[in-house]
Amino acid sequence: MAVRALWFRDRTLYALDQRALPGRVVVRRLTTLDEVAEAIRTLTVRGAPTIGVAAAYGMVIAQRSGRYTADRAARVLRATRPTAVDLFVGIETVRRAWVAGDDVLAAANAYRSKIVEECHKIGTAGAPLFARASRVLTHCNAGALATVEWGTALAPIRVAREEGARLFVWVDETRPLLQGARLTAWELAREHIPHAVIADNAAGHYLATGQVDAVIVGADRIARNGDFANKIGTYEKAVVAHENGVPFYVAAPWSTFDARRKDGAAIPVEERDPDEVLEVAGRRLAPRASRAHNPAFDVTPARFVTAFVTPDGIVRPRDLPRVLARRSSSGAAASAR
Amino acid sequence: MAVRALWFRDRTLYALDQRALPGRVVVRRLTTLDEVAEAIRTLTVRGAPTIGVAAAYGMVIAQRSGRYTADRAARVLRATRPTAVDLFVGIETVRRAWVAGDDVLAAANAYRSKIVEECHKIGTAGAPLFARASRVLTHCNAGALATVEWGTALAPIRVAREEGARLFVWVDETRPLLQGARLTAWELAREHIPHAVIADNAAGHYLATGQVDAVIVGADRIARNGDFANKIGTYEKAVVAHENGVPFYVAAPWSTFDARRKDGAAIPVEERDPDEVLEVAGRRLAPRASRAHNPAFDVTPARFVTAFVTPDGIVRPRDLPRVLARRSSSGAAASAR
Repeated sequence: MAVRALWFRDRTLYALDQRALPGRVVVRRLTTLDEVAEAIRTLTVRGAPTIGVAAAYGMVIAQRSGRYTADRAARVLRATRPTAVDLFVGIETVRRAWVAGDDVLAAANAYRSKIVEECHKIGTAGAPLFARASRVLTHCNAGALATVEWGTALAPIRVAREEGARLFVWVDETRPLLQGARLTAWELAREHIPHAVIADNAAGHYLATGQVDAVIVGADRIARNGDFANKIGTYEKAVVAHENGVPFYVAAPWSTFDARRKDGAAIPVEERDPDEVLEVAGRRLAPRASRAHNPAFDVTPARFVTAFVTPDGIVRPRDLPRVLARRSSSGAAASAR
Repeated sequence: MAVRALWFRDRTLYALDQRALPGRVVVRRLTTLDEVAEAIRTLTVRGAPTIGVAAAYGMVIAQRSGRYTADRAARVLRATRPTAVDLFVGIETVRRAWVAGDDVLAAANAYRSKIVEECHKIGTAGAPLFARASRVLTHCNAGALATVEWGTALAPIRVAREEGARLFVWVDETRPLLQGARLTAWELAREHIPHAVIADNAAGHYLATGQVDAVIVGADRIARNGDFANKIGTYEKAVVAHENGVPFYVAAPWSTFDARRKDGAAIPVEERDPDEVLEVAGRRLAPRASRAHNPAFDVTPARFVTAFVTPDGIVRPRDLPRVLARRSSSGAAASAR
């Protein structure tokens, strides 16, 4: 059965607890704005498109509670995480409906449906890239868990497989929080897609020895010029793929493109708790006297991107500013903060 | 007090158990050839120069036991790990003394002293590189634990600091076995050298944002043309350092240079147990149905190396074949398998 990261029913947001996977499948019931905000902050709910949808439903819960103004609810949710632009798009979409007196649940449902539909279209658009690229490397989790359904990076892999492609996926474990080893591997294992988990350190070895035909990742925010933020370590994979002539694809729904940011320097990068590095599974690994730094994202320059896989097809980095300008002038792009 | 990875007394090899650090300081007593071989295989004793010295003393223990021929003892030790050439040099040094009827303990002691002395010289030769390069990135553990005393990559850092340089060390945690977070951080913390542990994924971010002045690593085997094998992930760091114009240094005693190997393609790379990736601290992190691949080393082409830091000074990659040929013709190089 297909993975669904979250769903809304009877004033409650139900979400798979992504911290508990793959060991336990736990569904969290979120019934207040604070619970939704906390779930996003703690990565119970994670993945740029998924946190956008979670925040949209968080706005619905806030409105129904009668305890918040639209602006105050939006402020609470915006403060959870800084990097993924989808979060701000999801919040803004429902905030506008709220302020206009429209049906906020209808707005959140429509936002959710659009994300899922766009991810499916990403799958269809990207599948031909993997008809012959049989050994694919991915970093972090850009699967159904990260996008409600289908995934971004994993959508073309899923569709290519349905169409008969024989694929093998190299899964970067993705330290510090191991979203690759825990979440991407869990999604692939459920669907019996052949894969192997590797230490993040090993990706370069496989790229350099001709064992990777293509790399595909998701994104947390893509600037107008094609520079993009994604899980820490993405930049290294992109540089090493480029060095070895291996195509590097970035898959994302339109909510992840931030036409207001000129380039990668303008993207804020979240620094998380050093204990995420110093401890694994609650056990301290480094000496007590040692400290850590823990940037959650890095920014990859557009020159390392072969192409973006969008709901409307493959877009080369040099064409991105024009495509975004056209979408903006046609009113298609929701505007974020 | 300075770290010593191992010492020999009364027919016994005493070794710090590098699997237990930093949580516990445990000294293992190794009194048979099989115990020494097992300690090397399980990484109780690790680091290319250190396992060379451990194997040399393993030969002494085998000779004293009266239960082995020199060739059989050498075979047992050679089968422990394939990549670090120092292992074979240490074994061969004592095997020759044994076959010639010379004092095997004197041969092992001399080999040990030479390694320690060469590492100290590496420190002196390399320290000027760090007089102004104040923020240094290192990968894995190339400290005293890896080389009996002083270290290779850490030796110039130690000497530069003694000479008054103000250094800060970025420590790659070095998955899967976390030799950076556990061992390098432990050595630096003992000596109050400022440092921060980072996920291996974060190194690229700091290299790209101008927060690293130099990278220095050790090596497990350096081919005649300067290609070298080192801990998995070294290749990625070298490529990304090169991309960002950050100098990349490789520090090693002469036992790590393998003049018989023309280039990196001729270096055997060890594949270790997949459970090292799938589990951390004994806890399974990936789904039961998922598999892993676990190459312990990768090979970095010489073009990414700014210079080798050797006991006899700084050697540019293009000069390496000539330097090795001169050493060989002067009879200085021990020949390994």
